[in-house]
Amino acid sequence: MRIGIFGYGNLGRGVESALLQNPDMELKAVFTRRNPESVKILTDGVPVLSVEQAEGMKDEIDVMILCGGSATDLPEQTPALAKLFHVVDSFDTHAKIPEHFAAVDASAKAGGKVGIISVGWDPGMFSLNRMYGGAILPEGKDYTFWGKGVSQGHSDAIRRIDGVVDARQYTIPVEDALNAVRSGENPELSTRQKHTRECFVVAEEGADLGRIEQEIKTMPNYFADYDTTVHFITMEEMRQNHSSLPHGGVVIRSGKTGFQKENTNIIEYKLTLDSNPEFTASVIVAYARAAYRMGQEGQSGCKTVLDVAPAYLSPLSGEELRKSLL
Amino acid sequence: MRIGIFGYGNLGRGVESALLQNPDMELKAVFTRRNPESVKILTDGVPVLSVEQAEGMKDEIDVMILCGGSATDLPEQTPALAKLFHVVDSFDTHAKIPEHFAAVDASAKAGGKVGIISVGWDPGMFSLNRMYGGAILPEGKDYTFWGKGVSQGHSDAIRRIDGVVDARQYTIPVEDALNAVRSGENPELSTRQKHTRECFVVAEEGADLGRIEQEIKTMPNYFADYDTTVHFITMEEMRQNHSSLPHGGVVIRSGKTGFQKENTNIIEYKLTLDSNPEFTASVIVAYARAAYRMGQEGQSGCKTVLDVAPAYLSPLSGEELRKSLL
Repeated sequence: MRIGIFGYGNLGRGVESALLQNPDMELKAVFTRRNPESVKILTDGVPVLSVEQAEGMKDEIDVMILCGGSATDLPEQTPALAKLFHVVDSFDTHAKIPEHFAAVDASAKAGGKVGIISVGWDPGMFSLNRMYGGAILPEGKDYTFWGKGVSQGHSDAIRRIDGVVDARQYTIPVEDALNAVRSGENPELSTRQKHTRECFVVAEEGADLGRIEQEIKTMPNYFADYDTTVHFITMEEMRQNHSSLPHGGVVIRSGKTGFQKENTNIIEYKLTLDSNPEFTASVIVAYARAAYRMGQEGQSGCKTVLDVAPAYLSPLSGEELRKSLL
Repeated sequence: MRIGIFGYGNLGRGVESALLQNPDMELKAVFTRRNPESVKILTDGVPVLSVEQAEGMKDEIDVMILCGGSATDLPEQTPALAKLFHVVDSFDTHAKIPEHFAAVDASAKAGGKVGIISVGWDPGMFSLNRMYGGAILPEGKDYTFWGKGVSQGHSDAIRRIDGVVDARQYTIPVEDALNAVRSGENPELSTRQKHTRECFVVAEEGADLGRIEQEIKTMPNYFADYDTTVHFITMEEMRQNHSSLPHGGVVIRSGKTGFQKENTNIIEYKLTLDSNPEFTASVIVAYARAAYRMGQEGQSGCKTVLDVAPAYLSPLSGEELRKSLL
């Protein structure tokens, strides 16, 4: 399989490194909106091209992996490229997934290609586990907890506050809430009861720390509904202790079985990730294999992780999988 | 969907109760090898028929759910019935799955039906998670722990010892081993390091308890490779404290990402089940929906959980799933 990477930030680099672990795939080119000569990648002998050159690579690349952002990049790029290549993206604006699906579906069908959207862990593996859990235990309840991990959206929101030089925000699940769910109690949990938010902030010299803390804690949507703690630290501490991007979380389905619903059964899917972008990239690369194979079978149109039979993700054959994994 | 249950033990009853939670399915008949008049089921108005009457119900039943044992029942029954109905079974003799797959595949193709075999949690949901984990994190290691839960095979093995009236064996994962895996250490673990076995035994009056304990602890394949503890209890204690069939376990994929494999990522899938047979039945019923739908699309032949796109399991439409779960 010949792979292209479209967009070269944290996620693009994660895809590049994931490809090294998958010998049935070959990176053919990285596409960037920056000046290609200014972009150094880590794989020898692979060209960096400008995004305008993608169309010309139509016959050299089987699957294009889109590594741009969901706000403005992917809504344009995924449908455009799905006419030319099988595509995989990690579109994660939950409310706009139906719209994005329709756009990619039309393009991919027109081009005879397969597009798999919203791949990663949430949306992605977490969606998959919510679906399996709900189908297996219809009389039950879903819970999703995120963290402990860095939320880039929340970190960015803090950085926009006047007087803030840098910021890192950790989302932390509340242990008591998690334990209540694991015990099968099926509690009703408010936003505040499920997660706390911890912020590490580097402020400008002389900035009013009290005002910054207040602005963070009262910020609507991002922080106002949570118990939030704010720590002011130095730039050096930020670099030393907060430069990685760990994340993770848990999806729990708690459901009853039996004629009297007398038995409780708990399904828990938990991710503990040192690197959020590298794990997301690893999921995407497995689905690139699926897109290619479904395309080889003559399928086309838009899919999500819910539509892809698991075996398509694995380099092993059906016989090998049945022998070794069942 | 019109469903038949073939075999009415713990699993058959579990399927019967799971069907009550799935309003798109209707139980049409239960088939038994016993005298049908001696079998009382819990759903009103549904006939109990003899297994010989199954063929005559060919046009009244869409999916036959097989609830017999893997040793002798399913190797015969699943291929035979796959000519007449879509079928789902929970065949779990790991080494014989390829052979069983081939037999069911031939029959199901001849009959134009879909057969899904080895459905449940192991094989089943655990297989699925081993596969997803391996495809996403190729540079990693798989771990499966079972328990705490009742192993019926091990309980039966104890019951065959001279002087034993009844027995219940719990398989228990070793917490230290689990924690070592969760920490990302990728340890090599021996059989003894992963699980312990705890046995509760009711002995005949006057039986030689020392001899029974010795026979259990040295039994090859079942106990000799484990640290085993044996408790002798009364029949009343057995009834009071050990009459349910809890089980569960964990599948963990621990894998490295990054150019220098510098980041550890852990995927954990954990089941905590009050009722092993009811949960297994709940998984089977979801796959019965998939078998029916794949059949409606004109597919035929044998499948496993690895071949079934997740969305087939859910009663919700693709649009509904994308809107609510992604």
